[in-house]
Amino acid sequence: MSDNKLAFEDFQPGRRFALGPKTVTTEEIIEFAREFDPQPMHLDEAAGRASILGGLAASGWHTSALFMRMMADSFLLASLSHGAPGIDFMEWRKPVLAGDTLSGHSTVIETRPLRSRPGVGMVKFRHEIENQKGELACLSENSIMFAMRQSLEMTS
Amino acid sequence: MSDNKLAFEDFQPGRRFALGPKTVTTEEIIEFAREFDPQPMHLDEAAGRASILGGLAASGWHTSALFMRMMADSFLLASLSHGAPGIDFMEWRKPVLAGDTLSGHSTVIETRPLRSRPGVGMVKFRHEIENQKGELACLSENSIMFAMRQSLEMTS
Repeated sequence: MSDNKLAFEDFQPGRRFALGPKTVTTEEIIEFAREFDPQPMHLDEAAGRASILGGLAASGWHTSALFMRMMADSFLLASLSHGAPGIDFMEWRKPVLAGDTLSGHSTVIETRPLRSRPGVGMVKFRHEIENQKGELACLSENSIMFAMRQSLEMTS
Repeated sequence: MSDNKLAFEDFQPGRRFALGPKTVTTEEIIEFAREFDPQPMHLDEAAGRASILGGLAASGWHTSALFMRMMADSFLLASLSHGAPGIDFMEWRKPVLAGDTLSGHSTVIETRPLRSRPGVGMVKFRHEIENQKGELACLSENSIMFAMRQSLEMTS
């Protein structure tokens, strides 16, 4: 089964993976905000309009979680991912408003074998998420660990 | 009402805000993962134990969202926050396992008025979240915008 999955060796610099599209609904924005970020501009249309966000807007952390799901559906669930140690940076460039449709891509920037974990390599990505107007809504870079195919062949 | 809320002027470098405690349950971990990060180590105890995380572990994005909620409850909802433009970095240092209790603090590092938005200032924080063993589970820095009290007085 693992043979068909994306291994460290498959992530060459420059390779791009499409993300989305995903339309964000009012109900999703409010549900996430109630649990994790109950600031008024994420809970209420009028409060959102009165804020610098200009409308009922998703929490930045909601946008980040939606981006994670887009990555999972695009390539992570079809890979030998070992997870990520963190986020190098994340910029919420534009408000994500109710009804917006997000899409984008993850591009491999660089890769390196991990000395501390033989058979595992680190892949650094640049992630760009746009809204339906083509505006950059979210920009991020982070590194994700993947098992090497070579190591699987050696141990099986 | 705004008079009682924390304004930009109240965030002096060195001031600390306690976060949590928050115990993370199996059900919460699985519910978040199903929606946003359906990788096996976040959905299934056995898969978690087999992974480098060592047990059913919260998605890093779930830990981040829980951290957001801890900030909201600690000081953001009692402040004149205008939201945050992003995250400078976030490190998921230790797996957050089912049953773990998270707590920590946000410390003001530096503050500056925003030239682009008169009456608003930017406050940079360092955020540290520990588990119940005192291990640093999550480390992050980001900046959050707050209205100035002075500006409110001038416009009211």
